[in-house]
Amino acid sequence: MPNPVIDCLMNHRSIRKFKPDPIEPETLDLILRAGTRAASAGNLQPYALVVIDDPKKLERMEVKAPAAIIALIDQYRLKRWFELNDAPFYNDQAINLFISYWDAVIALQNIVIAAESLGLGTVYVGMILSTDVQELLGVPEYVAPAGLVFLGYPDESPQLRPRLPLEAVVHRNGYHIPTDDEIRSFYRDKDREWNEVSETKKHKLQEKGVYNYAQAITLGHYTPEFIKGESQKLIANIKKAGFRLWEKRSKTKQE
Amino acid sequence: MPNPVIDCLMNHRSIRKFKPDPIEPETLDLILRAGTRAASAGNLQPYALVVIDDPKKLERMEVKAPAAIIALIDQYRLKRWFELNDAPFYNDQAINLFISYWDAVIALQNIVIAAESLGLGTVYVGMILSTDVQELLGVPEYVAPAGLVFLGYPDESPQLRPRLPLEAVVHRNGYHIPTDDEIRSFYRDKDREWNEVSETKKHKLQEKGVYNYAQAITLGHYTPEFIKGESQKLIANIKKAGFRLWEKRSKTKQE
Repeated sequence: MPNPVIDCLMNHRSIRKFKPDPIEPETLDLILRAGTRAASAGNLQPYALVVIDDPKKLERMEVKAPAAIIALIDQYRLKRWFELNDAPFYNDQAINLFISYWDAVIALQNIVIAAESLGLGTVYVGMILSTDVQELLGVPEYVAPAGLVFLGYPDESPQLRPRLPLEAVVHRNGYHIPTDDEIRSFYRDKDREWNEVSETKKHKLQEKGVYNYAQAITLGHYTPEFIKGESQKLIANIKKAGFRLWEKRSKTKQE
Repeated sequence: MPNPVIDCLMNHRSIRKFKPDPIEPETLDLILRAGTRAASAGNLQPYALVVIDDPKKLERMEVKAPAAIIALIDQYRLKRWFELNDAPFYNDQAINLFISYWDAVIALQNIVIAAESLGLGTVYVGMILSTDVQELLGVPEYVAPAGLVFLGYPDESPQLRPRLPLEAVVHRNGYHIPTDDEIRSFYRDKDREWNEVSETKKHKLQEKGVYNYAQAITLGHYTPEFIKGESQKLIANIKKAGFRLWEKRSKTKQE
């Protein structure tokens, strides 16, 4: 039953080390076209894809790669088209933001899959959500960051990373609240990973109060300061773009 | 240069009419596995996938299909694991919501691609974002809707829908603000579609003040009432789940 498409999906791994070789323009073009074939609500494509291959721009970014693609929530292009047609623009609401984000991100996932099928490696970087894209890219109103992927020919071949067992993620006809034992069994692989951490590294982490994998995530990696900082910058991006998730409150304020 | 993966991506079309034939369990299993191989921030998979194949549940839904998969933002499972490990939970912030949404939606896109490669048809339905999933699925705190796809064997073979020209969507090293002429050329196909609308239908639309495609979207389809209603329900879902996008304001309120 498997086929080349399923094989491609099942073999995804993130690549963080790339050869310096550039991506051929026709390869990049094909990948972008595959991106825009992803489904889109009302077939309106309320997103934009920014190719970054200027070495100066790439230098400022998190991963060393010959190219990056930034996906943007984009209701601005629609607004411009509406204006030329005397059509009123109401797309500054929460549903427009979330539908645009969905469409942008599945276009980006098509890009990842197309790239991998052509021998390229990719890695997503979530920090774009907290990046000031007005400063980085000069975006207009109603445009906000949705995703970022780095692309290039792989210079490493990492193992497949284990995923949670399917029963941890998949539910049937309703949400099954797991028992404590079920939760423990879902995360058994992560606990095993923790056991394989070297004693010196464990000792260091224990000084920070980290005694297991879950604590390593929440006390070591995704600390409250980090999460708060990222969230504030993300919210600032949405507000600056002009989307009104907070409308009701500000109305109450005016009263 | 094209290959079976690119071909699959390029040939996506939404299917809205399905044969009654059920999806074989092993096919569904393979599709779900392909879904969970999508990238995930920190490899934490903060999402859930709910298979709906109970005829009673399906009856209540927008599209007649033998199965649906609902993708959920899910920080609840992580919270439970954290609790069992004495690890504090801070993942109720905007960045967690948006990263979970991203991960959920790209898993769903893998599901769509895997399904299509196996001869199934799919259609996304965005209305899930405004659906009360606590009522529909019994989800706990920190779980909110992210996406919905219907699946089944196609009982129609629609044409590929035209997409905007690549230059409308793709930018290079920064956001290019299009000229009015560029905007007009990007949407030339939509204007052409409008010209093909029958005179009787046009006449009906003109009674509502709709004289072109852009006005048909914003006055006929995505009206301000519709957008506001959907947005309020979407925001209610996020608030009910316990995510704190509004934290700063509510603090100010308390002062």
